[in-house]
Amino acid sequence: MKGIVVLGSTGSIGRQTLDVIRSFPDRFTLVGLAGGSNRSLLAEQAGEFRPALVWYQTEDGGTASSTFPGCRFVSMEEMVCHPDVDMVVVATTGAAGLGPTLAALSAGKSVALANKEVIVMAGELIAQRGSGWDNILPVDSEPSAIWQCLQGEDHSVSRLIITASGGPFRTLPRSKLGSVTPEEALRHPTWQMGKKITIDSATLMNKAFEVIEVRWLFNMPWEKIDVVVHPQSIVHSLVEFEDGSIKAQLSYPDMRLPIQYALLHPTRLPNGHRRGLDLAEVTALTFEPLDIERHPCFTIALDAARAGGTYPAALNAADQVAVELFLQKRIGFLGIPSLVEKVVNSHSSGSATSLDDIQDADAWARRRALELAGV
Amino acid sequence: MKGIVVLGSTGSIGRQTLDVIRSFPDRFTLVGLAGGSNRSLLAEQAGEFRPALVWYQTEDGGTASSTFPGCRFVSMEEMVCHPDVDMVVVATTGAAGLGPTLAALSAGKSVALANKEVIVMAGELIAQRGSGWDNILPVDSEPSAIWQCLQGEDHSVSRLIITASGGPFRTLPRSKLGSVTPEEALRHPTWQMGKKITIDSATLMNKAFEVIEVRWLFNMPWEKIDVVVHPQSIVHSLVEFEDGSIKAQLSYPDMRLPIQYALLHPTRLPNGHRRGLDLAEVTALTFEPLDIERHPCFTIALDAARAGGTYPAALNAADQVAVELFLQKRIGFLGIPSLVEKVVNSHSSGSATSLDDIQDADAWARRRALELAGV
Repeated sequence: MKGIVVLGSTGSIGRQTLDVIRSFPDRFTLVGLAGGSNRSLLAEQAGEFRPALVWYQTEDGGTASSTFPGCRFVSMEEMVCHPDVDMVVVATTGAAGLGPTLAALSAGKSVALANKEVIVMAGELIAQRGSGWDNILPVDSEPSAIWQCLQGEDHSVSRLIITASGGPFRTLPRSKLGSVTPEEALRHPTWQMGKKITIDSATLMNKAFEVIEVRWLFNMPWEKIDVVVHPQSIVHSLVEFEDGSIKAQLSYPDMRLPIQYALLHPTRLPNGHRRGLDLAEVTALTFEPLDIERHPCFTIALDAARAGGTYPAALNAADQVAVELFLQKRIGFLGIPSLVEKVVNSHSSGSATSLDDIQDADAWARRRALELAGV
Repeated sequence: MKGIVVLGSTGSIGRQTLDVIRSFPDRFTLVGLAGGSNRSLLAEQAGEFRPALVWYQTEDGGTASSTFPGCRFVSMEEMVCHPDVDMVVVATTGAAGLGPTLAALSAGKSVALANKEVIVMAGELIAQRGSGWDNILPVDSEPSAIWQCLQGEDHSVSRLIITASGGPFRTLPRSKLGSVTPEEALRHPTWQMGKKITIDSATLMNKAFEVIEVRWLFNMPWEKIDVVVHPQSIVHSLVEFEDGSIKAQLSYPDMRLPIQYALLHPTRLPNGHRRGLDLAEVTALTFEPLDIERHPCFTIALDAARAGGTYPAALNAADQVAVELFLQKRIGFLGIPSLVEKVVNSHSSGSATSLDDIQDADAWARRRALELAGV
């Protein structure tokens, strides 16, 4: 039995993680749950899985109420270090997962990481500490695809090729991008996901974050990572080897597959929710080059990541604020790259050798973004 | 240094195998060469690689002439068992590779097998002898793709999906199939190959042979092997795992890739002839169901393979005669399935427990095919 903690259990990835855990009752014990503001769903989950530990956002640093009978209220950092925990699923969004992830890695736990912003912010820091990457298992479909394609290979890799659906505005005339609404941006063509990642998909910030994620996860130089647009989201990513052979991983879009792969790795087991891919039904898998001029966030993000230091943390914080402001209709869609770029350009990067360095840059960039947005 | 023997070195796969060996002079020594009727090309190859052993077809059981200075003339069976030999590349066609393959396996040599008819004829026999399959490395692009996709996986496979280009007549009205010429059938849309395999591709006999090949190579039940038509020949085959994930292997069509993979396995090395796949250039990978009614050879072959015993040997011999007669314009294109079916239907299968059993069925089916064709 693997002892599991799910951080962000009430979000989209968190709920699907519980689906997977529910499918394999003889393999997993849920040790802890942490949720954000959806307290009633969290209570329902706790009622079903009876975890020993729980955390949720409180105004008053409160403790577990009678809504969570039998659950001890602890911080996420304490939860992930509990001796019964083997694996921590980090399904939070934005900066929330950073502290718990670093705590889990320090405690030698496996981390199934869906919250890619953690790597964006702290990739350099985790690399400095060494040995962390072997314990981080990707949950996102693209890095999971790459991970699956690398199984049994001796790392003679010449290129990682990440696929991108292109988002909801792939074919929209560029002149109309300025007036798209949050509702339109939230209508992702192939994936049902949380709001933050769906907007990041529309701006292609999410794709840049994935480039950064695989750069660190698989220790790959930037120039060996390509992105290709693949609107059907069936081929989740590809790996090219030095002999010219390419491997790809395919499935219908369903996050439960990469989640299950991370939780059970290296074992593959049948599950009730799979639907075998019918290629003749799919008819065609199409590919096109990425139009980076259309999506300035992509270049802004990779420039910040290449610059290193605390730039990526500032980038991530600025994006989180910008997306939130866009969802509140306080800035337009093109206001997102514009605001993020201004924040990053006005940032003075320091070294990123501690959690504090990163959290300071994060806090600075949030203030700066709100200031620049005039909010 | 790996000691290599190439059987069928003057054919298409044989020549490409020598290309690969030429690319890695510090990895391979050519110990022996065996060719068919193209004696001048064989002499040229021997002049370049200076193998110790040579064989070619002679009328009089002759010995190495002055055309092959320094080469000892030996039978293919003797050649493959030589102590300097680590790997035997079987790039012969039809039934020619059977005896040498069985001899090489008995001597514990690795066999890189392009001549899939050997498995069609003797799959059952090799399985009975046990332990053979681990020493057989596929060279054909489809089984090589499956082999590559299985690396690092624990065999929780739910389906093997073989791709088929569909051949030159995929879109030809069915009524016109009867009048196609050998010249038209030899114009394969995506692969440059030898004559026999190109005609087998047009009739889809080759695809049935591949189903039989992977059934034995990967010990897979018939019902877990699917074929899907993929006209671009970029996705060489796919493996579906029990969790619903699929892996595929892709490249531009170039037989030197799977040949190199078999020769260097598990190492992947850069090579001069690779051209990285540009998915955006490829634009679309398309898939459609296989039209088995259009291609009766496919069903005839799989029925014979499922029946087992000496049926597959009779099938293979009948096909070899039928293809030859078609190339000589003595029967039409639809005469191939018709003749093969008649031979198989009139065969009385015995047990296939020895090379003699198989060779007897082979000889019988050849006679019977010529008799039925009235030649």
